[in-house]
Amino acid sequence: MRLSELSERSGLSTATIKYYLREGLLAPGRRISATTADYDEAHLRRLRLVRTLLQVGGVSVAAAREVLKHVDDDSLGRTIRLGAAHWALPHPSAPDGAQEDEALATARREVDRLLDDVGWESARDLAPLNPDHRSLVEAVASLIRLGYPWNAEMMTPYARMMHQVAVHDLDFTETYPSDTEQVEAAVAATILLEPILRGMHRLAQQEETVRRYGIT
Amino acid sequence: MRLSELSERSGLSTATIKYYLREGLLAPGRRISATTADYDEAHLRRLRLVRTLLQVGGVSVAAAREVLKHVDDDSLGRTIRLGAAHWALPHPSAPDGAQEDEALATARREVDRLLDDVGWESARDLAPLNPDHRSLVEAVASLIRLGYPWNAEMMTPYARMMHQVAVHDLDFTETYPSDTEQVEAAVAATILLEPILRGMHRLAQQEETVRRYGIT
Repeated sequence: MRLSELSERSGLSTATIKYYLREGLLAPGRRISATTADYDEAHLRRLRLVRTLLQVGGVSVAAAREVLKHVDDDSLGRTIRLGAAHWALPHPSAPDGAQEDEALATARREVDRLLDDVGWESARDLAPLNPDHRSLVEAVASLIRLGYPWNAEMMTPYARMMHQVAVHDLDFTETYPSDTEQVEAAVAATILLEPILRGMHRLAQQEETVRRYGIT
Repeated sequence: MRLSELSERSGLSTATIKYYLREGLLAPGRRISATTADYDEAHLRRLRLVRTLLQVGGVSVAAAREVLKHVDDDSLGRTIRLGAAHWALPHPSAPDGAQEDEALATARREVDRLLDDVGWESARDLAPLNPDHRSLVEAVASLIRLGYPWNAEMMTPYARMMHQVAVHDLDFTETYPSDTEQVEAAVAATILLEPILRGMHRLAQQEETVRRYGIT
């Protein structure tokens, strides 16, 4: 398809698409003449992912380029491609979480104990490199720093439930035909699904509260 | 205990505690003389919650005062107290989610269909008032607006899993002795647990990816 059709089908202006091309967020179309290029469904899919990253994920253009570089690198196996793309997403840091203090050291030990308890061996092995591991440690450190009780035993069922959620995520991404599409879907799902899960969680808390105590 | 001891045990300076007193975030101590007041464990607990709201939750002083007003209102039943306190927390709005367009209307219908499917009757009844319902609708609208497939059937298992998480949350808050402490624990858990669940979810995705595809 021509640029005008790509614009119409994606709902993005041609100026925006040209900007994404210049910034390396979208691969050039197949050159047909000096002034025209041909685009295909993969371009349309990619534009959807770029909008997800920039508009919903609040990811910077530079960070989006980094994420997409990993998504596109088919010299990597699926696990590394996915991991690298995920890790390149911005990681929320707890506002008070990054202080290197005793609470952070305790949190690191406790999270490792939790990973052992639930048998997440790979998550354990990759921990030192993993910004998602770091985010979890910081969140636990906030809780410890405030003096709330931390209890690995209490957290184990949560980890098992989140594993069930992840199994469902991967079953869903496997419905896409190619490795590239699966990695794209996994990145989009991370950005789009997290607020949906948080919203469901809060509604479920309220539903369960009414079931237990009535509306009083 | 005296102010100095409250400061030492809470790890907050006396200036900070006096600021919280002035702002109405902490109830005055029991007056002993013109210059001294007596504080108890409830003050200590409340300071922990105030720090959770301000330092970790990023809640403004005005919003925190609103949340605490509901936490303290023992003329309300537990459900309403909890609901009101939760609803007074800041609600993340999807960056592109608030536009009143066709996607938002579709999202509202689809979320209601989902609530019917999983039988969350109270969440359904309270929907028009509920900022958490609104956040969920906005998150679904983002997904629809980008042209990703939305599938209520696919979302039902997620809702059921988040309900299991909520059951666990409430079992935990019920370990606290009084209604006030339970409401306090529920508010703190919302702020502190959400980043922990998100971190666990991401680690679980990575763990499950390695289990399915190996490290390649």
